[in-house]
Amino acid sequence: MDGKKSINIGLIGQQFMGRAHSNAWTQARHFCSPPLNPVLHTICARNMETLIPFSELWGWQNTCNDYEAMCRSPEIDLVDVTAQNHMHLAMSKAALAAGKAVACEKPLAGKFEDAREMAALARKSDAPTFVWYNYRSCPAVAYARQLVREDAIGTIRHVRGFYLQDWADESVPLLWRFDGDISGSGSHGDLCAHTIDMVRFVTGEEITEINGALFETFIKERAQVTKVSGGGIAANVSGSGDAEMVPVTVDDAVLFLSRLEGGAVCSFEATRMATGRQNYNGLEINGTKGSVRFNFERNNELEYYDATGPRGRQGWRTIMCTHEPDHPYSQFWWPDSHGTGYEHAFINMAADILRVLAGEEPISPMPDFEDAFKTQCVLEAVTQCFNEQRTIKLSEVT
Amino acid sequence: MDGKKSINIGLIGQQFMGRAHSNAWTQARHFCSPPLNPVLHTICARNMETLIPFSELWGWQNTCNDYEAMCRSPEIDLVDVTAQNHMHLAMSKAALAAGKAVACEKPLAGKFEDAREMAALARKSDAPTFVWYNYRSCPAVAYARQLVREDAIGTIRHVRGFYLQDWADESVPLLWRFDGDISGSGSHGDLCAHTIDMVRFVTGEEITEINGALFETFIKERAQVTKVSGGGIAANVSGSGDAEMVPVTVDDAVLFLSRLEGGAVCSFEATRMATGRQNYNGLEINGTKGSVRFNFERNNELEYYDATGPRGRQGWRTIMCTHEPDHPYSQFWWPDSHGTGYEHAFINMAADILRVLAGEEPISPMPDFEDAFKTQCVLEAVTQCFNEQRTIKLSEVT
Amino acid sequence: MDGKKSINIGLIGQQFMGRAHSNAWTQARHFCSPPLNPVLHTICARNMETLIPFSELWGWQNTCNDYEAMCRSPEIDLVDVTAQNHMHLAMSKAALAAGKAVACEKPLAGKFEDAREMAALARKSDAPTFVWYNYRSCPAVAYARQLVREDAIGTIRHVRGFYLQDWADESVPLLWRFDGDISGSGSHGDLCAHTIDMVRFVTGEEITEINGALFETFIKERAQVTKVSGGGIAANVSGSGDAEMVPVTVDDAVLFLSRLEGGAVCSFEATRMATGRQNYNGLEINGTKGSVRFNFERNNELEYYDATGPRGRQGWRTIMCTHEPDHPYSQFWWPDSHGTGYEHAFINMAADILRVLAGEEPISPMPDFEDAFKTQCVLEAVTQCFNEQRTIKLSEVT
Amino acid sequence: MDGKKSINIGLIGQQFMGRAHSNAWTQARHFCSPPLNPVLHTICARNMETLIPFSELWGWQNTCNDYEAMCRSPEIDLVDVTAQNHMHLAMSKAALAAGKAVACEKPLAGKFEDAREMAALARKSDAPTFVWYNYRSCPAVAYARQLVREDAIGTIRHVRGFYLQDWADESVPLLWRFDGDISGSGSHGDLCAHTIDMVRFVTGEEITEINGALFETFIKERAQVTKVSGGGIAANVSGSGDAEMVPVTVDDAVLFLSRLEGGAVCSFEATRMATGRQNYNGLEINGTKGSVRFNFERNNELEYYDATGPRGRQGWRTIMCTHEPDHPYSQFWWPDSHGTGYEHAFINMAADILRVLAGEEPISPMPDFEDAFKTQCVLEAVTQCFNEQRTIKLSEVT
Repeated sequence: MDGKKSINIGLIGQQFMGRAHSNAWTQARHFCSPPLNPVLHTICARNMETLIPFSELWGWQNTCNDYEAMCRSPEIDLVDVTAQNHMHLAMSKAALAAGKAVACEKPLAGKFEDAREMAALARKSDAPTFVWYNYRSCPAVAYARQLVREDAIGTIRHVRGFYLQDWADESVPLLWRFDGDISGSGSHGDLCAHTIDMVRFVTGEEITEINGALFETFIKERAQVTKVSGGGIAANVSGSGDAEMVPVTVDDAVLFLSRLEGGAVCSFEATRMATGRQNYNGLEINGTKGSVRFNFERNNELEYYDATGPRGRQGWRTIMCTHEPDHPYSQFWWPDSHGTGYEHAFINMAADILRVLAGEEPISPMPDFEDAFKTQCVLEAVTQCFNEQRTIKLSEVT
Repeated sequence: MDGKKSINIGLIGQQFMGRAHSNAWTQARHFCSPPLNPVLHTICARNMETLIPFSELWGWQNTCNDYEAMCRSPEIDLVDVTAQNHMHLAMSKAALAAGKAVACEKPLAGKFEDAREMAALARKSDAPTFVWYNYRSCPAVAYARQLVREDAIGTIRHVRGFYLQDWADESVPLLWRFDGDISGSGSHGDLCAHTIDMVRFVTGEEITEINGALFETFIKERAQVTKVSGGGIAANVSGSGDAEMVPVTVDDAVLFLSRLEGGAVCSFEATRMATGRQNYNGLEINGTKGSVRFNFERNNELEYYDATGPRGRQGWRTIMCTHEPDHPYSQFWWPDSHGTGYEHAFINMAADILRVLAGEEPISPMPDFEDAFKTQCVLEAVTQCFNEQRTIKLSEVT
Repeated sequence: MDGKKSINIGLIGQQFMGRAHSNAWTQARHFCSPPLNPVLHTICARNMETLIPFSELWGWQNTCNDYEAMCRSPEIDLVDVTAQNHMHLAMSKAALAAGKAVACEKPLAGKFEDAREMAALARKSDAPTFVWYNYRSCPAVAYARQLVREDAIGTIRHVRGFYLQDWADESVPLLWRFDGDISGSGSHGDLCAHTIDMVRFVTGEEITEINGALFETFIKERAQVTKVSGGGIAANVSGSGDAEMVPVTVDDAVLFLSRLEGGAVCSFEATRMATGRQNYNGLEINGTKGSVRFNFERNNELEYYDATGPRGRQGWRTIMCTHEPDHPYSQFWWPDSHGTGYEHAFINMAADILRVLAGEEPISPMPDFEDAFKTQCVLEAVTQCFNEQRTIKLSEVT
Repeated sequence: MDGKKSINIGLIGQQFMGRAHSNAWTQARHFCSPPLNPVLHTICARNMETLIPFSELWGWQNTCNDYEAMCRSPEIDLVDVTAQNHMHLAMSKAALAAGKAVACEKPLAGKFEDAREMAALARKSDAPTFVWYNYRSCPAVAYARQLVREDAIGTIRHVRGFYLQDWADESVPLLWRFDGDISGSGSHGDLCAHTIDMVRFVTGEEITEINGALFETFIKERAQVTKVSGGGIAANVSGSGDAEMVPVTVDDAVLFLSRLEGGAVCSFEATRMATGRQNYNGLEINGTKGSVRFNFERNNELEYYDATGPRGRQGWRTIMCTHEPDHPYSQFWWPDSHGTGYEHAFINMAADILRVLAGEEPISPMPDFEDAFKTQCVLEAVTQCFNEQRTIKLSEVT
């Protein structure tokens, strides 16, 4: 209609992320002036009973339950994978085999071997790949990166990464997120992967070694899930009253110590058990010239300390990252301090994917499989550090 | 598709609010399970050059530039008015004359006489009316009202209402918002109207008298506008370098003192000149049992002080109003502390309009013309108080 | 001992302020290197039974219960008045008549006529006078004034002054603070006087007119006090179970609107009924270049918004006003962010009094009777505005 | 005077801590109604030139420069040690040998072997010992402990301890704090020791193992100190322009992972290089029923999350720990939200020492040498963990 080329999306999954991505492709066009028009061409999922109304609600033109067929379809340009972690490899493989662009939910894979294979496949393919580390497209996070690149905080000495949630008490049954065969890990891949990517993205530095690690599973067994409905993190899920108790095979929490290539020391913590923190994903970075701090529970805000001006006037300031044109993505949204929310990072990222596919610069550089594999190597190194009780250099993990 | 009845929307306006409302009708269906399916039937505006791409972007099925014709069309069920304040009366009149439901942007009108006529027309009509005091549908505001109704804060003694912005320095030319003929007033009708409605909504009490008032126009003349583009509050507008300076005929700031029917004393302030505050719309209420405080710059949060528990544990707490099912509208959105933004209040309100039209209870009661006229009476009483330098009882203003 | 001259203090009062001042004179010498050594020479109060242990605790060298005799004593250099408001005139008169320097607690007097007479007496005397508007010596407040003087915030457009407390519910009996004959007024002279002085001090501007005012007494009668012990605001006071109820003759709350000489509009509010606010004395000032905000509940912090730097980096910053040498008084206290508390403003002010008496510059200019009378004129103008329901120009109040 | 018994204090040291302790003993009597009257009997230091005016300022009755003689003096009841870490053992030994009570600054010693010997000496002595882990007497910290003991937060799962400062950039010369022979360690013993003690105190649990550790010295060499004046952390110290550069022999930062006896996982970080944090000493604890968070830069406040009440009303609340009688030590100080500062923890602790010496219960249990040795064992275990790259159980460190 507007003379732009279209691109046909094939989405796999209709749960929490299926909804977030359906919205992202819809709203990217409404708000973000992408150079390509994303067409909601086909949605693919196993449960056709729920898929029909889902596809009607979001305006997906077609439905299917055979992802391999969808990947092969000449009408599909981009395969968007939101299925559970253990399916990322097979689905991405099918898409890449058909020469399709792939946008895969994070983490790259539940298992390190899967992720390694995915990176290798992507390396051999000409098709572009993307991994939905959506927090990169949160304006405040993108602006933190910009401040670091403008040398606003100088040489980085300290990084604290954290992702704290509190939804996983004893009453929660054994969702797939607690099943290592499906998820690969618990808070580690689910939460900490986001924070590791955020640290890499904002600092522009790689983690070079893991110096200490601690995993903990506070709740050793949970009720077998008998019925699941809805698409939240843990919402609308219950075990029956006399459900069988089964072992939890993933971590509830992970902490580790590490170093960045520029000499900084870093700590990370991710947990589903931090009472009072629900989506406290963020970081604090202290440099020689200043500091930044972010947490997603106040997603429009970036805290910044400038140590270069008059000492008497120094203080932590709260930047509302909503000012056009200074803040990334602000040109697409509302006036100053009329904030955006959780879904906007997905929308912003969808638009960035479309920019990359059109040969334009994205506002935030997005991770491809190769890049996301580096985050996966960190996850793996942390696990090795814990198991072997020694410092693991990232160069050992390949 | 889903067996729900449809309702055809006719929207007037394609600026800032035209965009917010187009999005609201779209997303209400995607997220809020409304009992009626809103159909983006016709959009009406003067500038057809921009209207065509706008309608294509948002999927409006038809365009027109004759609002009276649109109002008369038997295909339209609801007329949504986002034109400038001086047009609210004529447009609402046309819609009501045709027996159509009307949803009009706030304030009810720029001029008191217009508002009075609109309320009278609505009283005589069977058609439902709505006024877009959108902050009622901000979850934290709706939850504040719920706390008051649950007697969580007891008898109200103090209310502070405020709406502080800072976009209107000397560089901003004479936008329509500075032209009294079009807007009716400045910060008073633009900003303070929101806060007055919010105070009435949250407290459930009416303002009974205005005890003191102060208007100020800091910048007495501004450059004639020569070119406007875009749809922000003040974005993308400029006067030419040698633009003629013309008098500003509205207030930059307004402050007033008042009383509520339950005996509380109230202060209000609205301004476009509060450096550092960009959308600081909110209130603080102190009651005999507790207090609440809200400002939209942290729109997901409500501050609450409970003075009834053990004294040693009392403190201002920050409630993330995102928990399902406790917080209004939370069932439609994301997990805990995965916040929402500015547009969500519009979306929530659109869904509430659809609930009312379907004969269901809205989540937040919405103001009709009658109700919004009460806010307009407060605006008028404040003006009279300032002009006549005496306490004005609301019973005098009719 | 250290070669400095001594100055003999005669203090009147042994309650809450008697304790704060005894400490201030003691600690000023310990921490603030004053040019004169303050000697705790004589303490004067009516209740000798409690005065003896009080004087021993604090090291007062002498006690007496005849303030006139103390004022006449050639050994006393400075008379420090902390008695109740209705005694300020007589005591100051006695001291000035004897040619003694006087430091009087705020407000200058409970009644306007008393204050006027005190200002007149001071004008005719050569003796220096001081009024304990102690918040001037809170480092963050003094630094706010410095920022204004350095033109950090530009031309002032908005001021919000507030002093919110919450201690005065129905259970509190008729303390002297509720008795107009003794106190002169309620929240107005007790709390709002502090805030008026703070606004005058920080802005460096005078209030020129009062445009609207509202007084309220929420609790109309209270139990007759039968027994008082201790020296807190309201602590350790009770009426007997069957105490007679007597009318409250002062305000619980006051609000007013006003203008500053530089064109700013100002609002003020003081109350003893703001649940959740216990010593929330502060202000927010918005200027053309920036803003500052302070409240005493975070007494070490000043919030500052600088609108002159790069827009993307702007934000409200929290300055810890503890850095030597940039922040006033910081050189006398602890390292950065090792904060000070309530009593430090008194100590800092005592040292400033000693500097003035020695002919040195104080760190913060202190109000003398003349200056404090200006604050009293504002208090009076507010009362007149409320009574007469019209704008009162300060030039009318003399 | 007041019929209370006196106790004669002998203080060693006249620097930063000498001042803080002189003030503590003075003010404990003024404010805290201790059961014994502390007499400032003798102050002992090497530099008599500065000691004379110091002793006169604070009212010390005697001065000396021979701590062994002072310890032996029959007039001294309590020896208060504020000398540098490498002297703690010798001075404590002299005091204990003379049967005197000893209050020693923290850490117990710079070197683990010294600390072990001190604990052994104390065990063999009848004299009471105390270690000035002053943050225990900060009201908010003491109240956090009380909440834990009242089971307000349930079983503890996560602890984050942190002590962040930023004063140690390249311009700071080689103070004694950077000299391992004198200080024993850098941020580890100086800062982290406080936080370890605070975690032990608040949780009531011991650390059982160290699972990973990281030390870093960012600035490898510093200018030889040529002149020192003043008593701040780093104030008024400079190297001459052509000062010799000498190696720094301590850490600038330390991070470690650990476990508590109740099953919680813990992280700790201490640094002198966290730009923007000046005295950010605190902790966050997440339990099954709630959470608490404290940092000293807002020393009057405790953040508390109660997860046991109605879900919709839950939120992090800020408790002003100033309410009598609910908050520890509040009965001695000012009304609600009239805060206290850095020195008050010392004053409160001095009064607690006097209570213990009089056979009364202290408000906060104070660490004796035995208890402080447990903190020292943690410090040692962290060092071993870093050196040996393996988990160190505290049971191994004796």
